[in-house]
Amino acid sequence: MPNATLLECFESPAATAFIIEHIHEEFTSMCPKTGHPDFGRITVRFEPAQKCIELKSLKLYLHSFRNEGMFFEALANRIRDDLVAAMAPRWLQVVAEFRGRGGIHTRVLTGSGSVPERYQRG
Amino acid sequence: MPNATLLECFESPAATAFIIEHIHEEFTSMCPKTGHPDFGRITVRFEPAQKCIELKSLKLYLHSFRNEGMFFEALANRIRDDLVAAMAPRWLQVVAEFRGRGGIHTRVLTGSGSVPERYQRG
Amino acid sequence: MPNATLLECFESPAATAFIIEHIHEEFTSMCPKTGHPDFGRITVRFEPAQKCIELKSLKLYLHSFRNEGMFFEALANRIRDDLVAAMAPRWLQVVAEFRGRGGIHTRVLTGSGSVPERYQRG
Amino acid sequence: MPNATLLECFESPAATAFIIEHIHEEFTSMCPKTGHPDFGRITVRFEPAQKCIELKSLKLYLHSFRNEGMFFEALANRIRDDLVAAMAPRWLQVVAEFRGRGGIHTRVLTGSGSVPERYQRG
Amino acid sequence: MPNATLLECFESPAATAFIIEHIHEEFTSMCPKTGHPDFGRITVRFEPAQKCIELKSLKLYLHSFRNEGMFFEALANRIRDDLVAAMAPRWLQVVAEFRGRGGIHTRVLTGSGSVPERYQRG
Amino acid sequence: MPNATLLECFESPAATAFIIEHIHEEFTSMCPKTGHPDFGRITVRFEPAQKCIELKSLKLYLHSFRNEGMFFEALANRIRDDLVAAMAPRWLQVVAEFRGRGGIHTRVLTGSGSVPERYQRG
Amino acid sequence: MPNATLLECFESPAATAFIIEHIHEEFTSMCPKTGHPDFGRITVRFEPAQKCIELKSLKLYLHSFRNEGMFFEALANRIRDDLVAAMAPRWLQVVAEFRGRGGIHTRVLTGSGSVPERYQRG
Amino acid sequence: MPNATLLECFESPAATAFIIEHIHEEFTSMCPKTGHPDFGRITVRFEPAQKCIELKSLKLYLHSFRNEGMFFEALANRIRDDLVAAMAPRWLQVVAEFRGRGGIHTRVLTGSGSVPERYQRG
Amino acid sequence: MPNATLLECFESPAATAFIIEHIHEEFTSMCPKTGHPDFGRITVRFEPAQKCIELKSLKLYLHSFRNEGMFFEALANRIRDDLVAAMAPRWLQVVAEFRGRGGIHTRVLTGSGSVPERYQRG
Amino acid sequence: MPNATLLECFESPAATAFIIEHIHEEFTSMCPKTGHPDFGRITVRFEPAQKCIELKSLKLYLHSFRNEGMFFEALANRIRDDLVAAMAPRWLQVVAEFRGRGGIHTRVLTGSGSVPERYQRG
Repeated sequence: MPNATLLECFESPAATAFIIEHIHEEFTSMCPKTGHPDFGRITVRFEPAQKCIELKSLKLYLHSFRNEGMFFEALANRIRDDLVAAMAPRWLQVVAEFRGRGGIHTRVLTGSGSVPERYQRG
Repeated sequence: MPNATLLECFESPAATAFIIEHIHEEFTSMCPKTGHPDFGRITVRFEPAQKCIELKSLKLYLHSFRNEGMFFEALANRIRDDLVAAMAPRWLQVVAEFRGRGGIHTRVLTGSGSVPERYQRG
Repeated sequence: MPNATLLECFESPAATAFIIEHIHEEFTSMCPKTGHPDFGRITVRFEPAQKCIELKSLKLYLHSFRNEGMFFEALANRIRDDLVAAMAPRWLQVVAEFRGRGGIHTRVLTGSGSVPERYQRG
Repeated sequence: MPNATLLECFESPAATAFIIEHIHEEFTSMCPKTGHPDFGRITVRFEPAQKCIELKSLKLYLHSFRNEGMFFEALANRIRDDLVAAMAPRWLQVVAEFRGRGGIHTRVLTGSGSVPERYQRG
Repeated sequence: MPNATLLECFESPAATAFIIEHIHEEFTSMCPKTGHPDFGRITVRFEPAQKCIELKSLKLYLHSFRNEGMFFEALANRIRDDLVAAMAPRWLQVVAEFRGRGGIHTRVLTGSGSVPERYQRG
Repeated sequence: MPNATLLECFESPAATAFIIEHIHEEFTSMCPKTGHPDFGRITVRFEPAQKCIELKSLKLYLHSFRNEGMFFEALANRIRDDLVAAMAPRWLQVVAEFRGRGGIHTRVLTGSGSVPERYQRG
Repeated sequence: MPNATLLECFESPAATAFIIEHIHEEFTSMCPKTGHPDFGRITVRFEPAQKCIELKSLKLYLHSFRNEGMFFEALANRIRDDLVAAMAPRWLQVVAEFRGRGGIHTRVLTGSGSVPERYQRG
Repeated sequence: MPNATLLECFESPAATAFIIEHIHEEFTSMCPKTGHPDFGRITVRFEPAQKCIELKSLKLYLHSFRNEGMFFEALANRIRDDLVAAMAPRWLQVVAEFRGRGGIHTRVLTGSGSVPERYQRG
Repeated sequence: MPNATLLECFESPAATAFIIEHIHEEFTSMCPKTGHPDFGRITVRFEPAQKCIELKSLKLYLHSFRNEGMFFEALANRIRDDLVAAMAPRWLQVVAEFRGRGGIHTRVLTGSGSVPERYQRG
Repeated sequence: MPNATLLECFESPAATAFIIEHIHEEFTSMCPKTGHPDFGRITVRFEPAQKCIELKSLKLYLHSFRNEGMFFEALANRIRDDLVAAMAPRWLQVVAEFRGRGGIHTRVLTGSGSVPERYQRG
């Protein structure tokens, strides 16, 4: 099940502002209604304050959703909240895109702090 | 025929603002003049207030246009109105794209509420 | 030769503002200097006031350029003027793109009324 | 060698403002250091004042760089200056893109007059 | 190891403002934790003040990271700092994109000076 | 429902052997188990003997499956049989490809007469 | 864990020979050494004798590998054996393609009976 | 109307066997039933005996179909016959591909002489 | 330097014949003449006899070419020889593809044993 | 002008048979009738006997056509003859592909010795 304790951080290597994007192409979770697997892509984008997320720990955290039944909307907001708690970034955005069920693709965009306008389309 | 009673909602899982996009790649309806089938893609994009649209109910609602003869312009505005009535979102946009007839593709963009500038191109 | 009398309109199905784009992938006319055929794509984008252009009439109108010798720049502005005269839209944009002659592709963008900034790149 | 006298103009066919883009996919010049050929794409984008550039003359002008050894940066600015001198447009932009040497692609963007913000990324 | 002394400059060929982008598709460095190779694309974008970076020297400089173990975040900021020191541009942006490890792609965006809004997404 | 009487033929215009392929990108039928719509592409390939299928009649015939519930395997063989009965071709092949249900795409290949080896992969 | 009892068949709808291909884009299993998830595509291609595999049962069968740790080579041969046992087809081929681990993609091709030469590349 | 007298040949420059393919992306003719324009691609492939077709004459010949109403099947065989009469090649193949009408694309393949097996799929 | 002792095998999991392909997208070595890095893709395809190559060991073996200066032709044959020595497969093919130097891409195909005709194009 | 003395060879590094393909994406020559530049791709494919062509010498040789006016058919056969004279390969194939003039792309395929059937389509 989703496990935020897997998330590890390291100190940001630059004093000046910069932006990091991690795009995970192999996300999978379960549909809470049917039990069928969902597949998608999770993009995490942020401006670090003091801390950056360690890449391998992010991967293991995202793997922890594998057998979890969650709606897309709840899942995107959960990832946002867990990452904000771990890193306390200046701002952070999560874009969760899911391959189609019944011919419908879904994208959920959620953020924390002042996500710059240029990123608000995902 | 289009059946808005098929639409079901669930309560939004987050108190903070976020955005949802549903892209239906397999929309089909009929041309009201010739009776020939039309094929296209319907994108629904919104910021929920209290409610989100349930995915399977959206699929069944869009399927209900299958044997309906409607002009593209009327159809896009009808979907907008039905979804706004069902969810009362903060804002909502419908982008209806149709594969070519006689070599002409058509896109109709319509919205309700304050669709952010960044989405107004569809 | 270009024949604006082919254009027919129907009354806009919505009282609220919306936008329509028609993309014609199979446009052909003649080069006025060499007599060789030109091939391209014509995009017509507008916000209707009272009237929308009927799709089949638009196709026949665009077909009427088939054996006409016109420069790209004149052609794009001619289409703009004919459509504005037929529909009196709130605003209208024509983007005419031509396949390369001598390795050069050409795009002409022209508009009428207040084309929103977001569309001004075509 | 680059020959600006090849450029010919014709009178703009419209009194209202419009924009023209010419994209030349088959540009080639020489590296001034190694003598090896460079290959690239030249985009010329402008709003005409009184004059438009004649397409075939533009092609011949661009061909005249074929055996010229010039750095990318100098070349893009040279094309800008020659076209501005020939047409006196309201504004003009040149985007010169070169295929990789040693795995590096290069783009140079240069303009004259008030290139609209929407085009400044090329 | 990264060697900023490899960077050479030449005088900018134009008095007016223009922009240069160099995109290096064949960047490789090492992961400092596992010793495995990383592969990616480095984009360098700037407005020159007095000096432009010489293309071959940029290539050799980027090659000097080949056997260096660095985190993505540190690496992008290092390239930014070295290029700013060498050229003193009006502004400069570095976009470092890395192919996936464990299914995660990463992009780091960092800049110096007033990077125009239109480039801030990379 | 599938209606083979819609199929019309015309006399082959050449005495020598040749091959015709019709690819219909907008096929739709219904799933006999769930009632949900299926979408796909039907390719019909044949060497005419005396007769060729008239294109518009083929389109109307394929449209007649729109509200029919049939398994993919039965459907492909039905189309094959109807076309063979209408044209009596030297050989004929039907390739029916369906977009995924539950993440699975399906292709059915069926033929009549001596389909050349080079076509047997579809 | 892989569960062949999920596989259900139905009687082939045609007496004449034909071929079926099912392509599952969303296959996932686990690496038996590291416990990390693997992602890939499974293609099943066969000529039915008496029976065809029912599509939904195939999907559920492939889902049953979700939390199973198996090497790619063993997995492809296991799917082949289970499907041959269920359907007794004239011939059957399984092509298992896995997204890269450490930059390496892997394909395993295995068959049963006389897979036609034209399919032996997968 | 189609005008075979436009075709000009030159003597083959090699005594040994070789093969030439000309692919015309901008073919257009008229539908003989509706008068609407058709658009497509014509591929001509042959092994010269004594003569090769001159490229510009081929272009003008193909342009001569512009306002001709012909069925696809007749058109492909007509081009084959005209080219065989002009060049007397060892073998020749014509592949005529037409963009969709009513969602159906059509390809016609026809040949003269011993078209090698490897080309018979077009 | 290339290190064949890194290669490890495991026993083939199937008694019946099957085929394995490993495609490594991130191969890099050095040019022996200039010292510049080369980048490419290595495909290894084989039918196992008793042994299969272990995936991680293959990755480490291919990484061992990172700082080796070798011509493409020698490199492809070296990989072939090392893998044949390690696995003694029924047959094996190596396809080495290199990104362009000076605008030229290179592919080298080499094999051991009876590579089936269908694979001989790589 | 084409200069075969630029071609240099090195001794083949393998006693066993293998195949080499060089694909040059940036070929340019001149049209002998109009003087306009032609652009294309040259593929050279061969099985070495004693000698392989040195890559840089091949590049310089192909550059030597830059200002030469030659028909496509003559050019392809000339390259074949020069390379066969330089390397005396077991067999060799040249595929010359040219970007369109007047909307027509051209490919010329020519060979020497027993080009395997699998390569004869280019």
